[in-house]
Amino acid sequence: MAQRYEVRLSGAGGQGLVLGGVILAEAVALFEGINAVQTQSYGPEARGGASKSEVIISDGDIDYPKATEIDLLLCLTQEACDKYYHDLKQGGILLADSRMVTKLPEGDYKVYHLPIIDTAKERVGKVFVANIVALGAIAALVDAVSLESVEKAVLSRVPKGTEDLNKRALKLGYELVG
Amino acid sequence: MAQRYEVRLSGAGGQGLVLGGVILAEAVALFEGINAVQTQSYGPEARGGASKSEVIISDGDIDYPKATEIDLLLCLTQEACDKYYHDLKQGGILLADSRMVTKLPEGDYKVYHLPIIDTAKERVGKVFVANIVALGAIAALVDAVSLESVEKAVLSRVPKGTEDLNKRALKLGYELVG
Repeated sequence: MAQRYEVRLSGAGGQGLVLGGVILAEAVALFEGINAVQTQSYGPEARGGASKSEVIISDGDIDYPKATEIDLLLCLTQEACDKYYHDLKQGGILLADSRMVTKLPEGDYKVYHLPIIDTAKERVGKVFVANIVALGAIAALVDAVSLESVEKAVLSRVPKGTEDLNKRALKLGYELVG
Repeated sequence: MAQRYEVRLSGAGGQGLVLGGVILAEAVALFEGINAVQTQSYGPEARGGASKSEVIISDGDIDYPKATEIDLLLCLTQEACDKYYHDLKQGGILLADSRMVTKLPEGDYKVYHLPIIDTAKERVGKVFVANIVALGAIAALVDAVSLESVEKAVLSRVPKGTEDLNKRALKLGYELVG
């Protein structure tokens, strides 16, 4: 049976989660040769403050592209964490920003509570690369994708002139996982 | 029963179809208040030359976010047209670039064979806004979304400094439909 791995990136609008999802899907599909589907759902809830983007990774066909049992949930805001942690499966990975998410949910999760936004702001000097810092951490946590593949996908998607900034953000995110 | 409308944007990698899909979904969901899901599927075929991005629009819940009976198919290359026209429903809209798509499929389609890429290149002066020209034509063809909503969504997604260029591309695309 095909292996399926579900990732949801969540936070607020403007945090670059759509681009983050596109980059993760392209890293997996174009540079690892594994199937991926990337989705944004905009329903009534999208018109509130929380934003999400999903990537389904599978070595088989992906007939149902919505996340149903999430393996890795990124939360860059408390609101997103409160709203979405229920869909994280038991034993799944919760990757939460340590400044923005102060109340972690209880449950049988592998929690990585990391300074994603602070790393972007203070060590790269640009808060808008928080999505790329998060992708670095995800590259360290997800077996299906290597840091090299994510870096190639990042460089093919970010604006010219920001390559070094983004490479640094990615590397620092990877190192946060340790 | 909920009304569902399926759009597929197809062409080659690098033509901005992912961004086009994101903008269309955000125009519908954020500025028209209708539900939308936007999807990219990367399978073995994505590693060839054709690229696609889908948007499902519905006034109800969208339980199945893949396009199955397409109402509007955009084709910016012949390869994409040959590959994807089968999924366009009878009576659906085929919006094809008049320079790149020279062999139109036979079938009961409403065909708009328009100079999308030439408009971007010659009248805006930037071939990379072809995706935005196409969105202008789509705004003219799809009842669920107005030109104003697409313009707001475009302006929230394109790089600073390119707003006027993109507004012009969008307007010219809208006018192509006549």
